[in-house]
Amino acid sequence: MSELIIWTLDWVPEGPRGFVRDLRLRWACEEAGLAYSVRTVPFEGRETNHLSQQPFGQVPFLSDGGLQLFESGACLLHLARKSEKLMPHDPVGEAETVEWMIAALNSIEMVSVPWWFLEISGVEDNRLAGWVGNRLGQIENVLSEREWLAADRFTAADLLMADVLRVPKVRAFGDRPATEAYVTRVTGRPAFAKAHADQMAHFAAAD
Amino acid sequence: MSELIIWTLDWVPEGPRGFVRDLRLRWACEEAGLAYSVRTVPFEGRETNHLSQQPFGQVPFLSDGGLQLFESGACLLHLARKSEKLMPHDPVGEAETVEWMIAALNSIEMVSVPWWFLEISGVEDNRLAGWVGNRLGQIENVLSEREWLAADRFTAADLLMADVLRVPKVRAFGDRPATEAYVTRVTGRPAFAKAHADQMAHFAAAD
Repeated sequence: MSELIIWTLDWVPEGPRGFVRDLRLRWACEEAGLAYSVRTVPFEGRETNHLSQQPFGQVPFLSDGGLQLFESGACLLHLARKSEKLMPHDPVGEAETVEWMIAALNSIEMVSVPWWFLEISGVEDNRLAGWVGNRLGQIENVLSEREWLAADRFTAADLLMADVLRVPKVRAFGDRPATEAYVTRVTGRPAFAKAHADQMAHFAAAD
Repeated sequence: MSELIIWTLDWVPEGPRGFVRDLRLRWACEEAGLAYSVRTVPFEGRETNHLSQQPFGQVPFLSDGGLQLFESGACLLHLARKSEKLMPHDPVGEAETVEWMIAALNSIEMVSVPWWFLEISGVEDNRLAGWVGNRLGQIENVLSEREWLAADRFTAADLLMADVLRVPKVRAFGDRPATEAYVTRVTGRPAFAKAHADQMAHFAAAD
C-alpha cells in the first residue's frame, strides 16, 4: 500500500488557489493512479514553521514511507520513476522527459516567474520582458511542430511545462497559438481537473 | 569505453569564461573519473545554429552513445546516475541529492540569475534584491549547520549549488560566512580546478 503523503498549506488566500504547487504532485498521482493523502502545515508562520521539512519555507513536500523530498521538481522526478504513465522506462524516453522537466524549471520558469514578479510589483519598465519573450518564442517554435514535449506522448514533462505556462500573465504574453493549444490540451486532461478541483476544495474548506 | 561528449561553444568573450555551463559537466566527469571529449558549435549564429540539439540555442548539451541530452541540470542528473561519487545509490541519499540539485536550479538560480541580470542591466531599483537576499539567507542557515548539502558528503548537489553561488555578484551579496566557506571548500576541489582550467584553455585557444 502506498504511503504517499503530499504536504501543503492548511489555507491560502484566494489569489494563489489553483496555483499552489501541491497541484503538480496531486496531478501526477492522479495521472499515474498512485494512492496518496494530503496533510498540511499552517499558513500562519509558514516562513519558519516547517524549515526542517522544507528549508525555504515553501510547499509542497512529499513523504513516501521513510523518504522525504522537497522541491516540486524533485518530487515529480521521484513520482515519475514510479509509473511509466509519467515517464517512459527506455533510456531515450527517460532522457527526453527529464531534459524537458528541467527546461520547464530552469529555462522557462527561471525567467517567467521573476518576470511575473516584476509585473505584479508594478515596475514601469520590466527589463525581463525581452528575455521572457525570447524563451516563450522558442517554446512556441517547439510546440508548433509537436503535440507533446517528450517521447511522442504525455509525460511528466508536459505536466510541468503546462503548469509553468498556464499562469495567466504568462499565458497572455503575446500571440502564441501553438502554446495556447498545448496548454488547453494538457490542462484538459481529467487528472488535471481532478487535482485542480481537489486543491480548490481543500482551501475553501478552511475558509 | 565511454562515448561521453560535452558540447559547448567554440569561443566566447572573456566575460563568461570560467562560467559557461559546460564547466558543470566537465567538473562532474572529473569528479567521477568518467572519460569524455569536448566538441563545439560556433559562437557566431549560436541563437539558431544548433536548435535541433538545444531548443533554446544554449550550451552545454551532452551526447552519451545514442543518447542526447540538453539542460545542464538534466545532464548532471544523467552523469550522477553513472557514479556513486556524484550521487549515493541508496534511496535516501539519492533523494537528498536530487532535491538539492533542483533547489539549486529552481529555488536559488531562479532568483539569483534574474537578479544578476537586472544588476548588470543597470536598473536603479532592483526589485529582486529582497527575494534574492531571502533565499541566500535561507541557504546560509542551512550551510551554517552542515558541510555538505546531501548525504553528509560531496555530491552533485554541492557541485551545482556551488556553481550557482560562486557567481561574483552573488558571492558578494551580503555577509554570509558559512556560504563563503562552502563555496571556497567546494570549488577548492581538484576536479573543479581541472574543469575550470580546461574551459579557460579551450576558449583561449580559439582567440
